[in-house]
Amino acid sequence: MPDMEVLSEALRYIRRFQGLSVVVKSGGHAMVDGSTMENIARDLVLTRNVGIRPVLVHGGGPEISRVMDRMGKEPRVVEGLRVTDEETLEIAKMALIGNVGTRMVANIWTGGGRGVGLTGKDGGLFIARRKGSKRVRVGGEEREVDLGFVGEIVSIDTDVVETVAERGYIPVISPIAMDEDGGSLNVNADEVAGELAGALGASKLIMVTDVPGVLRDREDPSSLVSEMSVPEVRRAIEDGVVSGGMVPKLEACTGAITSSTVDRAHIIDGTRPHSILEELFTDRGSGTMITLGEKI
Amino acid sequence: MPDMEVLSEALRYIRRFQGLSVVVKSGGHAMVDGSTMENIARDLVLTRNVGIRPVLVHGGGPEISRVMDRMGKEPRVVEGLRVTDEETLEIAKMALIGNVGTRMVANIWTGGGRGVGLTGKDGGLFIARRKGSKRVRVGGEEREVDLGFVGEIVSIDTDVVETVAERGYIPVISPIAMDEDGGSLNVNADEVAGELAGALGASKLIMVTDVPGVLRDREDPSSLVSEMSVPEVRRAIEDGVVSGGMVPKLEACTGAITSSTVDRAHIIDGTRPHSILEELFTDRGSGTMITLGEKI
Amino acid sequence: MPDMEVLSEALRYIRRFQGLSVVVKSGGHAMVDGSTMENIARDLVLTRNVGIRPVLVHGGGPEISRVMDRMGKEPRVVEGLRVTDEETLEIAKMALIGNVGTRMVANIWTGGGRGVGLTGKDGGLFIARRKGSKRVRVGGEEREVDLGFVGEIVSIDTDVVETVAERGYIPVISPIAMDEDGGSLNVNADEVAGELAGALGASKLIMVTDVPGVLRDREDPSSLVSEMSVPEVRRAIEDGVVSGGMVPKLEACTGAITSSTVDRAHIIDGTRPHSILEELFTDRGSGTMITLGEKI
Amino acid sequence: MPDMEVLSEALRYIRRFQGLSVVVKSGGHAMVDGSTMENIARDLVLTRNVGIRPVLVHGGGPEISRVMDRMGKEPRVVEGLRVTDEETLEIAKMALIGNVGTRMVANIWTGGGRGVGLTGKDGGLFIARRKGSKRVRVGGEEREVDLGFVGEIVSIDTDVVETVAERGYIPVISPIAMDEDGGSLNVNADEVAGELAGALGASKLIMVTDVPGVLRDREDPSSLVSEMSVPEVRRAIEDGVVSGGMVPKLEACTGAITSSTVDRAHIIDGTRPHSILEELFTDRGSGTMITLGEKI
Amino acid sequence: MPDMEVLSEALRYIRRFQGLSVVVKSGGHAMVDGSTMENIARDLVLTRNVGIRPVLVHGGGPEISRVMDRMGKEPRVVEGLRVTDEETLEIAKMALIGNVGTRMVANIWTGGGRGVGLTGKDGGLFIARRKGSKRVRVGGEEREVDLGFVGEIVSIDTDVVETVAERGYIPVISPIAMDEDGGSLNVNADEVAGELAGALGASKLIMVTDVPGVLRDREDPSSLVSEMSVPEVRRAIEDGVVSGGMVPKLEACTGAITSSTVDRAHIIDGTRPHSILEELFTDRGSGTMITLGEKI
Amino acid sequence: MPDMEVLSEALRYIRRFQGLSVVVKSGGHAMVDGSTMENIARDLVLTRNVGIRPVLVHGGGPEISRVMDRMGKEPRVVEGLRVTDEETLEIAKMALIGNVGTRMVANIWTGGGRGVGLTGKDGGLFIARRKGSKRVRVGGEEREVDLGFVGEIVSIDTDVVETVAERGYIPVISPIAMDEDGGSLNVNADEVAGELAGALGASKLIMVTDVPGVLRDREDPSSLVSEMSVPEVRRAIEDGVVSGGMVPKLEACTGAITSSTVDRAHIIDGTRPHSILEELFTDRGSGTMITLGEKI
Repeated sequence: MPDMEVLSEALRYIRRFQGLSVVVKSGGHAMVDGSTMENIARDLVLTRNVGIRPVLVHGGGPEISRVMDRMGKEPRVVEGLRVTDEETLEIAKMALIGNVGTRMVANIWTGGGRGVGLTGKDGGLFIARRKGSKRVRVGGEEREVDLGFVGEIVSIDTDVVETVAERGYIPVISPIAMDEDGGSLNVNADEVAGELAGALGASKLIMVTDVPGVLRDREDPSSLVSEMSVPEVRRAIEDGVVSGGMVPKLEACTGAITSSTVDRAHIIDGTRPHSILEELFTDRGSGTMITLGEKI
Repeated sequence: MPDMEVLSEALRYIRRFQGLSVVVKSGGHAMVDGSTMENIARDLVLTRNVGIRPVLVHGGGPEISRVMDRMGKEPRVVEGLRVTDEETLEIAKMALIGNVGTRMVANIWTGGGRGVGLTGKDGGLFIARRKGSKRVRVGGEEREVDLGFVGEIVSIDTDVVETVAERGYIPVISPIAMDEDGGSLNVNADEVAGELAGALGASKLIMVTDVPGVLRDREDPSSLVSEMSVPEVRRAIEDGVVSGGMVPKLEACTGAITSSTVDRAHIIDGTRPHSILEELFTDRGSGTMITLGEKI
Repeated sequence: MPDMEVLSEALRYIRRFQGLSVVVKSGGHAMVDGSTMENIARDLVLTRNVGIRPVLVHGGGPEISRVMDRMGKEPRVVEGLRVTDEETLEIAKMALIGNVGTRMVANIWTGGGRGVGLTGKDGGLFIARRKGSKRVRVGGEEREVDLGFVGEIVSIDTDVVETVAERGYIPVISPIAMDEDGGSLNVNADEVAGELAGALGASKLIMVTDVPGVLRDREDPSSLVSEMSVPEVRRAIEDGVVSGGMVPKLEACTGAITSSTVDRAHIIDGTRPHSILEELFTDRGSGTMITLGEKI
Repeated sequence: MPDMEVLSEALRYIRRFQGLSVVVKSGGHAMVDGSTMENIARDLVLTRNVGIRPVLVHGGGPEISRVMDRMGKEPRVVEGLRVTDEETLEIAKMALIGNVGTRMVANIWTGGGRGVGLTGKDGGLFIARRKGSKRVRVGGEEREVDLGFVGEIVSIDTDVVETVAERGYIPVISPIAMDEDGGSLNVNADEVAGELAGALGASKLIMVTDVPGVLRDREDPSSLVSEMSVPEVRRAIEDGVVSGGMVPKLEACTGAITSSTVDRAHIIDGTRPHSILEELFTDRGSGTMITLGEKI
Repeated sequence: MPDMEVLSEALRYIRRFQGLSVVVKSGGHAMVDGSTMENIARDLVLTRNVGIRPVLVHGGGPEISRVMDRMGKEPRVVEGLRVTDEETLEIAKMALIGNVGTRMVANIWTGGGRGVGLTGKDGGLFIARRKGSKRVRVGGEEREVDLGFVGEIVSIDTDVVETVAERGYIPVISPIAMDEDGGSLNVNADEVAGELAGALGASKLIMVTDVPGVLRDREDPSSLVSEMSVPEVRRAIEDGVVSGGMVPKLEACTGAITSSTVDRAHIIDGTRPHSILEELFTDRGSGTMITLGEKI
Repeated sequence: MPDMEVLSEALRYIRRFQGLSVVVKSGGHAMVDGSTMENIARDLVLTRNVGIRPVLVHGGGPEISRVMDRMGKEPRVVEGLRVTDEETLEIAKMALIGNVGTRMVANIWTGGGRGVGLTGKDGGLFIARRKGSKRVRVGGEEREVDLGFVGEIVSIDTDVVETVAERGYIPVISPIAMDEDGGSLNVNADEVAGELAGALGASKLIMVTDVPGVLRDREDPSSLVSEMSVPEVRRAIEDGVVSGGMVPKLEACTGAITSSTVDRAHIIDGTRPHSILEELFTDRGSGTMITLGEKI
């Protein structure tokens, strides 16, 4: 009866996490695929129902692109850098909050739970300031490129998240921050998830992607690294072993682990059914787990 | 010292309304005028700060039109009736939730309060079903026109509104309902406000418009009717004395009064500073007050 | 990943039973087998840890016999009926409370939980009166045989059980009742479990035995009946399809189902690891489930 | 609509003071004028009704004189100093508690509120010891004059005041203290108010008099000083700019400000309707405000 | 060890009365005798300290007479009836509240407890209306004599008494009522005690006098009647067996018993040390106990 | 009326001990005498009823001997030392928990209270380790004698005791500890009582024996020492003035006094009715009181 062993193991994890927050970040690709959204929503509901408090932060790049395309707007790129001008910001806001967030809330509802869509503006959840410009090297000389309405978080007030989470709701958070004048800024969703996990005193940060985790060979799913320490992650980034979108995910993970109550962060595959449950409630987990490891 | 008399009068009203909910509905025109939004937000914050629980429901027609225009989409009109097709619904959702709602939440923040944007989907706040078609008479013969994704409310669960309002937040509600499969439906904001006032056991329903109230002569602001009974309202509608957008507002008012805890409803002018405070906290009020009047 | 389906199914059951009481009765044979006791204790602890309130009622026939044997005392049998004289009662009390109960409490402790041993005397948990005599037919004529210190329950006050269960303890109850003068009476453990389940408003009654459940053919474990309605149980008893120790178990089950909040009762095999978890947290269950069935 | 600005300003003050205590001391002259008592009572009730906790301490010199006169008793004066002999103390007790206190409680009742009369004896609210004697210079030589039953406060236990204030009552306190043997002592009401404000952690101390406040020229009401710092008050007393009954009032104010949570104290005119409301809820205030000012 | 039996008996009574109110009325004569006041205060404190809630109502006739005498005022008597004119009322108020009440509060303090002096005006505790006139027969003809400012209770709001009693204070109540305009009325203290006992849901009403109880022969203390039923009391009054001040006491007792939660009322001797304890905590009691007896 | 003085004195003690725990240890001899058990039970119930929390720890030597005798088992003695072999341990467990404890619980019930039987195993109340061996001198040479299953307490978790005591139950504790593997160990009841008194923050430790207290001359009850300081106790033990079973009692008393909140411990005679009440609630007490005395 090996599945009863799985269950008995799961009951131990349930007890350990009861009453604690778990921040789940799901990427923008997952947010345009109906069945992945359903997978994630279902696992969040099951998790919430046994007394754990999941908080979802979602991205939405592909959805933003879709709406821009519909409005006949080209992404603005200056010297190879994506720039969020005012119009792009407005489209991002509408697409993330009006489409992605509400759709996720609806998936949670049809999955048997109750979600509440939030942004950084609700109750002053997260306040950001403009990241300003970035130096780029163009043809031998350096130039400053203004990134536009892109923000970095300067303060978090988790009260609104905790108020609804305590009451049994699953917060669904769009990565639009408020600036100090009440304006909007686009913030990287990985960064939001990492900072929020710390501010909530969460026990776990789970990054849901569309790949199995960190792969030694990006073409070979069987090359999955099941556990990495923070120093190993740093070395892997330095050595270029990991690159692209995996880098900010790993940075959010190591940031949360080294500076907060989060002691384990995970990168898992959202297209696989029940991958969140497997991660939370089994010894074997799924994907790649990041731990503090030995201090260097 | 006549202003001290005003204050002393106000203190009596504050005491009467403390701990009660007041539903304020502000129309779409108010939502595109910065200073009107600021007026409304400031009054909501002051009201919340002395222990009354304002709940805002907003419209957004002009903003929806602006976004449609930006996306090069024409409003669909069949036999003179506006039809909400799928694309229009998506634009409405994005404009109402992503733009209008978040902007109002930001105005509350800069006014010193804390707002939370919500829709009918959050926590299953309001579930609707499609209104279906409407019979129209075209050239002597009747035809059915399908109104598309327009809903009428079938159930309300105010828990999420009460959870955040109890904690000091001002709920800002976009009139997008959830249908039974998790899909979206556009609902008339006046209808949402009226139903919500009843479900919350609110003591007041305040419709904020851009006119002074019900006018005997629509061109003459001095012809303001300062009080009407429900039977008078009904007669005025039948006789065509009031028409246009004022009709659904009056219907939401009479509906709330005749079927719920709401015993006074008001139609006031949001462009006038502190018109909500004046309405709530003075004997003279502002605009038109609807009362039950004698039963017929 | 079929075990994740098992887990996801289990999470639904956990949610359903959280905060509710489940009465588990384990027979005397289980109570002399170390590994069965460990099995049961482990499952009780896991169940308690996720917020369900298990209450254990235990039997102890074999242990009583062992102690009687040690004290050189023969069971008293009159006309084929077992009679509990004063000395037997004292031995039963000592064996059940002093040995079986404390041993089970210790097993719960080593399994990671906290148990509290109780009897019907503690806080007046259950008061009984003597069952009196039973008519037996001896050689063609009827005679009354006094059963001695055997009781039937006349009142239950669950306060002490609820006080400790609310606080996280697992009550372990020996079937010794108090009579109205403060004396002791032996009560059938199945009867205690059934009555207690009703009085506690328990959602489940689980009878842990050393057989797989109700068998169509007692020699053939594969003839297990996985579900029976109350009328089917009654017919099976009348027709003699079931007999012996299974009869009082089935009667306690049907009694609890027909007269209380218990809507499902179960007869399972305690020698099988995690049989309680399997019963509580899977669709397939284990053993025989008794349901109300159609009313006759 | 300038009165709406007044109201909006008032709402901010209401929020700031909600849940806090405000000690109001009204002098003996106010206590013999019916309409001034009504003014004060009405403002206390309005203040209490919006969630602020006013506590009234009253004087009663003129009422004591009236009763003494009625009983044919002359005030005892030794070397120009008023002496409270045993008979005077008894008359003071009866006049203050039996007449002034109960009359104020009745005014609060007819003003729509609920008052509770208290003295220093109730619940050991304030314990005092005799002030003893005072040196006076008579015809070139110094003599000690025993002041009789006049006390200075040695301890305060605010529990009884807080118990009734929390429950919505307005405490009305007569300045009769208990000595350590259960006897009575007369205490200066300004001193009681100042000490009580400190002990209650009050945010404000308001001295209600029958003059507009501190006047540069005592004959000219238009010479009102609207704000004074503690050092300015001290200098004004030293220089003799203020004198008479204003001195103990100013000393109670500066004492409370320099040694407690009170950060603003006020001297206002009780004969002016709503002068307490104006003081508490407007920027302009009324009368003279004492602030800490720069430290010297 | 017979005193241990007394103690064990007392513990049973303590348990029975814990958390309940007991109204004690002490007459005016007791209020001018220092050692009787100390006796009463000490017993009230001991009673309060074990968790019972004593409420004291006091009279004060002799003290009123003393103050009137001091003020050179003669009692006004019209046709043999005492009349409370305005001046008498004021003296009564001052003497009862300012002297008797505060002195009792001080006695409670020196006895180790905490008292709070109250009147019918505090928190609107009891509202009365003028009793109006009484018909008297003078020389063969009937005349109306206006009794002046003497009231009968029309409503009781026990909130202020319960607020302080819950918090551990012993309420000390002077029998001055508020009339509907905020004025004062003198009320018979026995009547106040009886009505208050009913309104508080008190379990006992104890009338403390300076006689042992109801005596068969007023000159012979050994003729004490230790128990009377309500019908017996009525017959004794009708037959003139009891007369004078004992009549209103007995009427307050029978009134409270027949119309409220009070099931036993007692008339005891306050000059005897610990007579209240003896009454409350022993089987034998002290003085005369009034019970409902058989219904007639 | 001297018994009223006793009562008034008792009320002061009741107030002092309300809400506090008092540990009562009754010896094994008391536990085989019906009327002594009734005495003790009655006093515990009365004490509990006025809000004090008695906790009973009982011994049971004579009962263990009786059962051993019934089972034909001889006490094992090695070199003059009593040895608890496995069989003896089992008999001790059965006799203490199954007989003595349940009988005491029944006595509390018939005395009007509610008891709960507990052991060191319930909720891990007390964990012990084997005391190991003791050196004895036999015929001029020392030998180690293994004492068998006798334990000394290594940790106490009072939660289960406090949970039931708060709820009004009287815990009845058998001195059987759990060892770290879930096994049982016999612990000296005096030691359990002393340790438990400390762990509970009890205010008193009362040792109920069958002698009047410490006697100067063991044959002469009138030689009772009514008070001893800890140093006097130590000297008396050293000098052999006290010996036998009195020694561990005195050691438990001095241990509790010198290392915990217990400031007075008492040795009293359980055969005397109400000796516990007399001890707790009178100045004179009964038996011998141990106090800290001057520090040496």
